[in-house]
Amino acid sequence: MNNPRVSIFMGSLSDKEKVAPAAEILKQLEIPYSMTVTSAHRTPERTCKLVQELETNGCQVFICAAGMAAHLAGAVAAQTTKPVIGIPIAASPLGGMDALLSTVQMPPGFPVGTVALDKAGAINAAWFAAQILALQDKNLQNRIEQKRAAMRQKVEDSAKELEKE
Amino acid sequence: MNNPRVSIFMGSLSDKEKVAPAAEILKQLEIPYSMTVTSAHRTPERTCKLVQELETNGCQVFICAAGMAAHLAGAVAAQTTKPVIGIPIAASPLGGMDALLSTVQMPPGFPVGTVALDKAGAINAAWFAAQILALQDKNLQNRIEQKRAAMRQKVEDSAKELEKE
Amino acid sequence: MNNPRVSIFMGSLSDKEKVAPAAEILKQLEIPYSMTVTSAHRTPERTCKLVQELETNGCQVFICAAGMAAHLAGAVAAQTTKPVIGIPIAASPLGGMDALLSTVQMPPGFPVGTVALDKAGAINAAWFAAQILALQDKNLQNRIEQKRAAMRQKVEDSAKELEKE
Amino acid sequence: MNNPRVSIFMGSLSDKEKVAPAAEILKQLEIPYSMTVTSAHRTPERTCKLVQELETNGCQVFICAAGMAAHLAGAVAAQTTKPVIGIPIAASPLGGMDALLSTVQMPPGFPVGTVALDKAGAINAAWFAAQILALQDKNLQNRIEQKRAAMRQKVEDSAKELEKE
Amino acid sequence: MNNPRVSIFMGSLSDKEKVAPAAEILKQLEIPYSMTVTSAHRTPERTCKLVQELETNGCQVFICAAGMAAHLAGAVAAQTTKPVIGIPIAASPLGGMDALLSTVQMPPGFPVGTVALDKAGAINAAWFAAQILALQDKNLQNRIEQKRAAMRQKVEDSAKELEKE
Amino acid sequence: MNNPRVSIFMGSLSDKEKVAPAAEILKQLEIPYSMTVTSAHRTPERTCKLVQELETNGCQVFICAAGMAAHLAGAVAAQTTKPVIGIPIAASPLGGMDALLSTVQMPPGFPVGTVALDKAGAINAAWFAAQILALQDKNLQNRIEQKRAAMRQKVEDSAKELEKE
Amino acid sequence: MNNPRVSIFMGSLSDKEKVAPAAEILKQLEIPYSMTVTSAHRTPERTCKLVQELETNGCQVFICAAGMAAHLAGAVAAQTTKPVIGIPIAASPLGGMDALLSTVQMPPGFPVGTVALDKAGAINAAWFAAQILALQDKNLQNRIEQKRAAMRQKVEDSAKELEKE
Amino acid sequence: MNNPRVSIFMGSLSDKEKVAPAAEILKQLEIPYSMTVTSAHRTPERTCKLVQELETNGCQVFICAAGMAAHLAGAVAAQTTKPVIGIPIAASPLGGMDALLSTVQMPPGFPVGTVALDKAGAINAAWFAAQILALQDKNLQNRIEQKRAAMRQKVEDSAKELEKE
Repeated sequence: MNNPRVSIFMGSLSDKEKVAPAAEILKQLEIPYSMTVTSAHRTPERTCKLVQELETNGCQVFICAAGMAAHLAGAVAAQTTKPVIGIPIAASPLGGMDALLSTVQMPPGFPVGTVALDKAGAINAAWFAAQILALQDKNLQNRIEQKRAAMRQKVEDSAKELEKE
Repeated sequence: MNNPRVSIFMGSLSDKEKVAPAAEILKQLEIPYSMTVTSAHRTPERTCKLVQELETNGCQVFICAAGMAAHLAGAVAAQTTKPVIGIPIAASPLGGMDALLSTVQMPPGFPVGTVALDKAGAINAAWFAAQILALQDKNLQNRIEQKRAAMRQKVEDSAKELEKE
Repeated sequence: MNNPRVSIFMGSLSDKEKVAPAAEILKQLEIPYSMTVTSAHRTPERTCKLVQELETNGCQVFICAAGMAAHLAGAVAAQTTKPVIGIPIAASPLGGMDALLSTVQMPPGFPVGTVALDKAGAINAAWFAAQILALQDKNLQNRIEQKRAAMRQKVEDSAKELEKE
Repeated sequence: MNNPRVSIFMGSLSDKEKVAPAAEILKQLEIPYSMTVTSAHRTPERTCKLVQELETNGCQVFICAAGMAAHLAGAVAAQTTKPVIGIPIAASPLGGMDALLSTVQMPPGFPVGTVALDKAGAINAAWFAAQILALQDKNLQNRIEQKRAAMRQKVEDSAKELEKE
Repeated sequence: MNNPRVSIFMGSLSDKEKVAPAAEILKQLEIPYSMTVTSAHRTPERTCKLVQELETNGCQVFICAAGMAAHLAGAVAAQTTKPVIGIPIAASPLGGMDALLSTVQMPPGFPVGTVALDKAGAINAAWFAAQILALQDKNLQNRIEQKRAAMRQKVEDSAKELEKE
Repeated sequence: MNNPRVSIFMGSLSDKEKVAPAAEILKQLEIPYSMTVTSAHRTPERTCKLVQELETNGCQVFICAAGMAAHLAGAVAAQTTKPVIGIPIAASPLGGMDALLSTVQMPPGFPVGTVALDKAGAINAAWFAAQILALQDKNLQNRIEQKRAAMRQKVEDSAKELEKE
Repeated sequence: MNNPRVSIFMGSLSDKEKVAPAAEILKQLEIPYSMTVTSAHRTPERTCKLVQELETNGCQVFICAAGMAAHLAGAVAAQTTKPVIGIPIAASPLGGMDALLSTVQMPPGFPVGTVALDKAGAINAAWFAAQILALQDKNLQNRIEQKRAAMRQKVEDSAKELEKE
Repeated sequence: MNNPRVSIFMGSLSDKEKVAPAAEILKQLEIPYSMTVTSAHRTPERTCKLVQELETNGCQVFICAAGMAAHLAGAVAAQTTKPVIGIPIAASPLGGMDALLSTVQMPPGFPVGTVALDKAGAINAAWFAAQILALQDKNLQNRIEQKRAAMRQKVEDSAKELEKE
């Protein structure tokens, strides 16, 4: 994928399993994306450079997943005015409260749109990116609405399954 | 403003002071917006109806501010596939932790891009909305970048002020 | 059960195991109930419609179980003036604090009687519903008191078991 | 009021201001109530005796407000099978988290329907009691629905007020 | 043991494993004790009666272990002026914070000397009881000091073990 | 007071106002006490020496009040086998959670009987010390029971006051 | 001060009052320092450049104070291998928990030595910097020890003051 | 190692596995270190004596790891003006919040440079010690920078690994 519209960054390869659903949703919604590992602390220059390159190539939304003192989303938000979505990862004994507060409590002027912890957050980051891109893409909007309808249907199916028991 | 691009909802008139900076930023960035009071619990039908009407009239981003068991952003996110940004308001003795968790921990498929608590969050909600809209609006993108430069300059001015003392 | 007096809603089929004890207690107390899956965010219309139908058919108490930004109980409380009991489900790394605060911190006028997290809460939701219904049903009151006596006896039996060791 | 249908207990006279709105709502809804001070720790016998006397005289719902290690609601729930509603009071530097957890996390079989902290909780405790009693009282049900409509109207009035500015 | 000097109460038989170390330490220190199950909520009368009987028979210290909205220690402290020691048990997804705050935040005049969560707390409850009783018992004081010396020695042994590696 | 039976230590003179009620209760109960400032970190040798001197002179219970990383009670508990009671002081923006956890979570073998935060805790520390000393002092036991009766009466007086309004 | 040995960065001029004691202590200990405002998010390039310039000019320790999602210390730690000390500032309704966790929970390899919140932390940051520099500076070591002795004396003076009352 | 430059203390042998990475990093960086078990509460004299002996023999930095009411780092900081680094260990159901607050919230004048919980903290404690020592050791500084470069490379390798998939 040469010209991703969405870039997914994770702070560590160990976050891969929790972040993977973001990629999965983007694929299902046919949104070109890239996914890589980069760290706010270990590779700050790489992070800056990636943001610039991706932006130049047309990336419109950044999704950043990180645990502990999760600075990745904030570091990216400092480098771009494209929307940045943060996924806090529960990666310490503190139950993800560290990553959540490090991601969401950004200072005025540098927002990170923060979603839920871990997999639920990864899924929602992808959805949020899709909803942003759909503002300029009717077809994507349609795909989103079809999948929403399917999610609704799945609840009704669950209900039937439960009621049968 | 007949055709707002951004709608700001607050759950209670008592949130007005904390939410006002969102409107202020949108005004500065010349983004048409509307602002009203509506409640996920007290006026659920009004909330649904407002979302539909605003969406029909071209609203592209919803900003929702609420305190305590802050369901407003989630209730709006359930009604639209436009991006929804949530501002948790600290309105109980729990220091806003109730509103933060009620806003950010959305289930898969229904994201709320959550920003910081209170005024910092209101400012960032407006910025985030602007960054989303700027994906399709070069002029807005320029205004955003000018204001960012001004924010940078302000830090440098603060530094000079401090160093003088 | 065509005319349930108590309706149990869960936000996701994955909550089933934690919610099941609520149904078990209602069955033991011979209270007609229904149980289904419905979501405040995925199926808001279904949730509204269910509340109306159930209320029309004589449902007197709603029990709602949900995790994360647990809005289900609040969404039901917005649609009915029947008593709504909320069971917060621990379904994220935050140990259920998200669901607890999202359920209990309701705004003035729209109460959710919140019980403990997970299975203990499911059991107590059923008991609380039963205690409410028993205000108009002497026989149910008697069954409740018999079961209470049995719970007391069980503590005494535990004590004997422990003292024997 | 000789035969209160709802009894409000507060653990300390210092809680009076935060609990008063409960009485105010009950008065508006024309529900006979009594209000007194009694403590789970200082006056356990008084608490037991009050519960028995009130129950004998027709009390149907108990509302208990307490701060810190808030045991009052639980102590009452141990003595009656009438519904008990707990209002956690923020009365220590811990922001009410102590009272909330002490009230809501009751063991299986002895539910306390817990509402929000402080004044919002006091209001909701009264509403919840009213909703319980309305199951057997059509007129009360009507008064509740009228007041709900007024609350809805108040949101719309707030919206107009805000939009005028 | 007809005349226990220390009584251990646990709120539920399921706490047995975490509470057992308290009994073990008392045994090692040759302090007569009894251990039983009784609940602040399920068996309040039994709890009161036990306190009175034990006190009449010479019990001088009460140790109470309970989880969730842990009221057992407070309920005992309301019935006696003998020292009451509380062990908070982590028995919910909240990591024991519920039991800790329910036990320690007692209102003025009714202290519970609270120790650490779970097994560490059970051990310390026994030690604390022993230290209280040793104020009137030189031999016990000696046994305590011998065991303290042994604990010190154990740290030094651990140090040697570690340094060898 | 040359031979205090209870010693009150506070970590900083700034804790004086919150700790004063402990001294007040001891005075009312006619228990000889001393009160001083000493710090686990600033004056560890002074703390050790004070403990030894006081113990030699007959001190039987230590009360230690400290804020933040509140080590004072633990440091005293490491130096004596007399009972040590800890009062956590809320002295940082964390609402006293730092002092509470630093005081209560002691390792096995070195208990600190921890009471509530701030003034309520100071009062309870004094009560707890008195209850410990009363095990060997019938007259003190009587004074404690008289004051308990007075506390009960005060609740009844409050109740009358409230009911009059 | 052209060649500061310690640099103090604060994320916002509004932190000045809380950070000032750090400068005060360094001045008292005769350590050359500089103090400025720079932000991890608003001025990331300025922050990087400052670190490089200061390091080139002989700066040996960085002290960084920031509130909310406090990334400043981490951002500096990513740019230098000189020791970085972080002061979390309580600047939101969350009581500083956000800044504390954002500062202390750094990923492996990029430590920030974190001190207490707010003024206590500012003082300790300066002390910690001084203790680091004193490893190579006997005179500074002497000044530190003199001031420590003074702090000890102050506790003894406080004790006398209290005992006089 | 007769003349360690860094001493690692752990409060209990059970912390060994979590603390081991600190030793591993020091070994890799060729910094002479010692590691032992000593407890602030069980062996306060041993702790004091060790600090004095190690300091006399040239120890320049102390690393202290402890769980629960983690006083070890503070107790060492009270005995030395060498830099003390604290590793909070998650060793109770509270997720390490107890150890973190007990370690970081030190009173003015007695800093503990606190790092992350558990293994990440152990690694960072070693790094922080190394960075402090490198201020006087060019070769160590070079080794640190080489390892940093390797850490950066590892992120890039992870990125390639992920992108290949």
